[in-house]
Amino acid sequence: MRLARFSRNDTPQYAFVQKDASDGLNYLVVLDGHPLIGQVSPTGERIPLDADGVRLLSPVIPSKVYGLAKNYEAHAQFMFEHGQSTVEHAPAKPVVFMKPSTSVIGPDDPIVYPSYSQDMNFEPEVAVVMGRVAKDVPAERALDYVLGFTCVNDVTLRDLQQGDPMWTRAKGFDTSCPLGPWIVTKDEFDSSDAHISFTLNGEDVPEASGTTANLIHSIPEQIAFISSFSTLLPGDVILTGTPYASGALHPGDEAVVRVEGLGDLRNVVVQG
Amino acid sequence: MRLARFSRNDTPQYAFVQKDASDGLNYLVVLDGHPLIGQVSPTGERIPLDADGVRLLSPVIPSKVYGLAKNYEAHAQFMFEHGQSTVEHAPAKPVVFMKPSTSVIGPDDPIVYPSYSQDMNFEPEVAVVMGRVAKDVPAERALDYVLGFTCVNDVTLRDLQQGDPMWTRAKGFDTSCPLGPWIVTKDEFDSSDAHISFTLNGEDVPEASGTTANLIHSIPEQIAFISSFSTLLPGDVILTGTPYASGALHPGDEAVVRVEGLGDLRNVVVQG
Repeated sequence: MRLARFSRNDTPQYAFVQKDASDGLNYLVVLDGHPLIGQVSPTGERIPLDADGVRLLSPVIPSKVYGLAKNYEAHAQFMFEHGQSTVEHAPAKPVVFMKPSTSVIGPDDPIVYPSYSQDMNFEPEVAVVMGRVAKDVPAERALDYVLGFTCVNDVTLRDLQQGDPMWTRAKGFDTSCPLGPWIVTKDEFDSSDAHISFTLNGEDVPEASGTTANLIHSIPEQIAFISSFSTLLPGDVILTGTPYASGALHPGDEAVVRVEGLGDLRNVVVQG
Repeated sequence: MRLARFSRNDTPQYAFVQKDASDGLNYLVVLDGHPLIGQVSPTGERIPLDADGVRLLSPVIPSKVYGLAKNYEAHAQFMFEHGQSTVEHAPAKPVVFMKPSTSVIGPDDPIVYPSYSQDMNFEPEVAVVMGRVAKDVPAERALDYVLGFTCVNDVTLRDLQQGDPMWTRAKGFDTSCPLGPWIVTKDEFDSSDAHISFTLNGEDVPEASGTTANLIHSIPEQIAFISSFSTLLPGDVILTGTPYASGALHPGDEAVVRVEGLGDLRNVVVQG
C-alpha cells in the first residue's frame, strides 16, 4: 500500500495512491483520519495524482529524524579516498546523528543552498518510518514497529561537516531532509535488499547506487540500537545510510533519489 | 508572569503561578487554551500548588531542543583541567548540539541512569523558550521572539560523549533534559545577568555556579546563530550552556538546578 500526504488549497490530507488498471495512471484515494494516530477510511473521493492544485507533501512530519553515518563500507572508503574522512573503514559501532523536523521537505519542494556553504552534497537513502512507540526493541522484533519506507536525500554541507565539531548545521539546516514521494507499507517492500540510485539533471550517477543488502548495521539493528537510548514515536524517521558515492549539488540542479519499489523523490536546488 | 504546565488526573493544562499575599503560598490559576498556540484565559479555578494529585510537568514539549557546548570560558577550562577535553579554551564559534523532544522531562520526574553508561554528569543552565517563529533573526531583535526562560539540567553521559563521534546518545537519551519548574516570561527576568547554582543531595556545589553575564555567546547571539540555519518554532528550547563545573550523578542523588528569578528544578536519579 502506498500512503501519501498531499494538499489541495493548502489543506493537508492523507490518501492511498492506486494505479488504475484501465488507464495506467496514479490516483489519490482520499482518506479521512491520520494513519499514525488512528484508523483511516476512504472518503469516497478519487483524484488524479496530477490534477491541478494537487501537491504531494512530505508523507510524514516526524517528531525527530535519526540518521546513520557511514553505514556502508563502500561509502566509508569513498569518503576516505576523496579526502573527506581520515579513516579508511566504516566504524564498528553505529554513528547516529539527528535532523530536526524543520529540516523536512516534500517531493518537488526546493532544497535551499545556504549562503554560508560552498559544498552541498546529495546522499540518496532508504528511510524507515516508525508506526508504533518503540523503546528497547530487540532487532528480531524491530520491524513490528515499522509502518513503512520512503526515499530520502540526506543533504549535507560537507564543508560545515568538516569545520563544525557537531553536524547540527551541516545536516540539520532548513530543507536538508527531502522525504517522499510516499510511504510504502512494510508488507509491500523488501527492505533487506532495496536498490537505491540517484539521478542528477536527468543523468544517472552510477557510483551513487547500491543496495540495502550491503548495510553494515541492518535496518532491524538500527532500530534496536536507537531504541536502546531513545523512545521512537509513530512517524519518527531513520535515515539508513547512503550506499556509496556522494557528490556536489549546485543551484539549479535537479536531484532525484530512486529506490526500486518506493518511487522517485525529486527536488530542485535553489540559491538561498 | 510564571507560566506552568501541570496535570490532574493525567490531563495536562496550563496555569499562571501566583503567590497569595495573605498566606504566602503559591497557587495555580488554571487557564483555558495553550499559550503557544493562541490566547489563554483564566477558567476561574485556583488550586494550591501542593494540592493532592497536582503535578507540575515540563512547562513545554518543544519540537526541538538546541544546546550550546562550552559557552563559558570557566567551563571550557574546567573540562580541560579534568581531562574531559584536549582544548584549553572555549571555541570561538558556537558549537550547537540537539536533544530530541523525547529527552524532555518535568520537575520531580526521575532522571534514568542508563545501564550502558558509568559517567552521568549534571549541567545546570538557563533555558530559553521561544514564543514566535524565528528565521534569520538578528541579535538586536532576537529577544522579541522569546516567550520566557526556565531552568534546565543538560544531563550528559560523559563516557559516551568521549567515545561516540556525535553526542546523540550522550546528550539525547530519554530523560536527559529536565526542564522547569515553569516559564518566567521575559518581561520579569533579566537573562543578561542570571545567577545559576546547583545543589546535590541538599549540599550547594559552589564550583557549578555562575552568571549568564559570563556567556561567551549571549542569548540574543545564540538565537541569531541558530535561526541563521534552522527555523525556530514556538516552544522550541535553547540550552545556553553550563557556567563552570560539571560533576557526577549517581542513582539515588537529588539534583536541584536553581536560577535566581526562575525557581528550582528538582529531579532524582534512578538506575535504569
